[in-house]
Amino acid sequence: MRTIELRGKSVVMIDQSKLPSKLEYIYCNSAAEVAEAIRQMKIRGAPALGVAAAMALAVTALRSKSRDARALLKELREAANEIRDTRPTGANLFFGLDRVMAAAREAGDDVARVRDRVVEEAKRIAEEDVEVNRRIGENGARLLEDGMTIMTHCNAGALATSGEYGTALGVVKAAVEQGKNLKVVVTETRPLLQGARLTTWELKRLGVPFVLITDNTTGFVFREGMVDCVIVGADRIAANGDVANKVGTYTIAVLANRHEVPFYVAAPTSTIDLRTGSGEDIEIEHRPSEEVSSFMGTRVAPEGTEVLNPAFDVTPADLVTAIITERGVVKPEEVRSLFSSNSV
Amino acid sequence: MRTIELRGKSVVMIDQSKLPSKLEYIYCNSAAEVAEAIRQMKIRGAPALGVAAAMALAVTALRSKSRDARALLKELREAANEIRDTRPTGANLFFGLDRVMAAAREAGDDVARVRDRVVEEAKRIAEEDVEVNRRIGENGARLLEDGMTIMTHCNAGALATSGEYGTALGVVKAAVEQGKNLKVVVTETRPLLQGARLTTWELKRLGVPFVLITDNTTGFVFREGMVDCVIVGADRIAANGDVANKVGTYTIAVLANRHEVPFYVAAPTSTIDLRTGSGEDIEIEHRPSEEVSSFMGTRVAPEGTEVLNPAFDVTPADLVTAIITERGVVKPEEVRSLFSSNSV
Repeated sequence: MRTIELRGKSVVMIDQSKLPSKLEYIYCNSAAEVAEAIRQMKIRGAPALGVAAAMALAVTALRSKSRDARALLKELREAANEIRDTRPTGANLFFGLDRVMAAAREAGDDVARVRDRVVEEAKRIAEEDVEVNRRIGENGARLLEDGMTIMTHCNAGALATSGEYGTALGVVKAAVEQGKNLKVVVTETRPLLQGARLTTWELKRLGVPFVLITDNTTGFVFREGMVDCVIVGADRIAANGDVANKVGTYTIAVLANRHEVPFYVAAPTSTIDLRTGSGEDIEIEHRPSEEVSSFMGTRVAPEGTEVLNPAFDVTPADLVTAIITERGVVKPEEVRSLFSSNSV
Repeated sequence: MRTIELRGKSVVMIDQSKLPSKLEYIYCNSAAEVAEAIRQMKIRGAPALGVAAAMALAVTALRSKSRDARALLKELREAANEIRDTRPTGANLFFGLDRVMAAAREAGDDVARVRDRVVEEAKRIAEEDVEVNRRIGENGARLLEDGMTIMTHCNAGALATSGEYGTALGVVKAAVEQGKNLKVVVTETRPLLQGARLTTWELKRLGVPFVLITDNTTGFVFREGMVDCVIVGADRIAANGDVANKVGTYTIAVLANRHEVPFYVAAPTSTIDLRTGSGEDIEIEHRPSEEVSSFMGTRVAPEGTEVLNPAFDVTPADLVTAIITERGVVKPEEVRSLFSSNSV
């Protein structure tokens, strides 16, 4: 299953806001349409956003009427700015834009060549994402033993990436393919219920047994000794190993720490941003109040209720047991080593 | 505002499942109707359930056709058993039943006298609850300073009691009446959103500023240093000071501990059950899956999803800074002292 693809001159993606009741695809024919899909969280998940950002530039290039390279580069820069403004926290979105823009700049003066390089690079990012996640699964699966119960938060599955594997769920998938029997505790993940809607849907398709809990029930489950390890994804990992991920992750990390349960983060190295020194430097996106004060269009809180709705929180490196990447499993304080020439 | 009252031969209560959009009252004319209202959580909150249980017996007595005391006592025992089976965790429900049944048994052989004592005792429990909560507020308010932000979970307000004060929110109310400026962080409290629906509604009426968060956002809020103390209610307090309260409470206590924020429990001594040695002896109620897999009748998780939906969790005494009761503020390991003759 692919979450997002370039088909002809369109970006085709699963509309994740409709799952699990409907599997619908939407076509985006401009960077503006991709930006809107991102804002409305029809597509989400750090790696998937990196691919979406790259493909937004590909669609811009494919549909451009610019006759010279400079004009096309200007169009691409404008499109990149529009995408850049959608969601500030995740690293991969910027990674996707930066890679495609670099390819465009280096393509020379021929407009057709610029267009081809942009499309090529966007497709390469999507393909690499699949391969990277396959390797994350392979590296992480060694940490899981037969009979384990894994808690995950939000959705770090195929839907959060290009498709096929996913990050945290990719680890589960790889271990299950090795014949290990696993069970997953799925947190529903308010406010948008990515756990209840998306992770359950993926696990059902994979045939992996799972149990759904409210986010309030995490403490209960730890206290009952039901969790052998936690695996979550990440939206940005700072140079010191601090991890920004879906709000609620920090709470789970604190619980895991109290109960001496390993807490793993599964993410591609493209999620690691060495320019971000620590978690304090990560801008946290705040989402609309209505996500909390209403549910499916029905108001649940009184009129005029003030809401605080951050989309992410930061888990400090000292609560992270290890980070599972395509280049290996490292301690959070060692993420820099993944980028030194001899470790690649 | 009264949450529950005996009016004529009926128990009249606010239908809390309709708030905040509608303030509706329901009339229960039998113990069976009160039991159904409890099961459906039209009335909830440990102290309110104690009053509801007592009033269910009062209505039974008032409408009884029994001609002798023995027959009426049998009816009352059957009604008490029906109420006893509704929700196993909270102590107050049993407290309410036990007190009224003791009064009935001690009333002698005259059926009219039994009936009168039952009604009298039920009314007394309701009145005492108001007075007890007023004193909890008074005792707890001393712990709060001007400018503080208090986190609370679920609803431990007037709606969770006979009315007027509430336990945790009674403390906030009393401090505000002393002229202290306070702000409250309200957790929405999945699955039934008592925080988003009920605590916000009460705070709005009291004119106390508040901010609503998802349960996932508790960690974020602690990490930002926004919380000066936590005050929650309790459904049962064991002899060793372990506290059963709405699921999610334990998680907040763990966070408060990590961030060195005081964690207070506000509850009447009727919530303390000395026959329960520790939290391990508390039976935790598990509620229907549909509360999690559906929302307002709309399915959110795929068909066949297994759900774990405990209504409560247990916070061990070592995470509780103090318990605020009508008889004073004590350390959790000292709850027994509240029942020794010289402390009453």
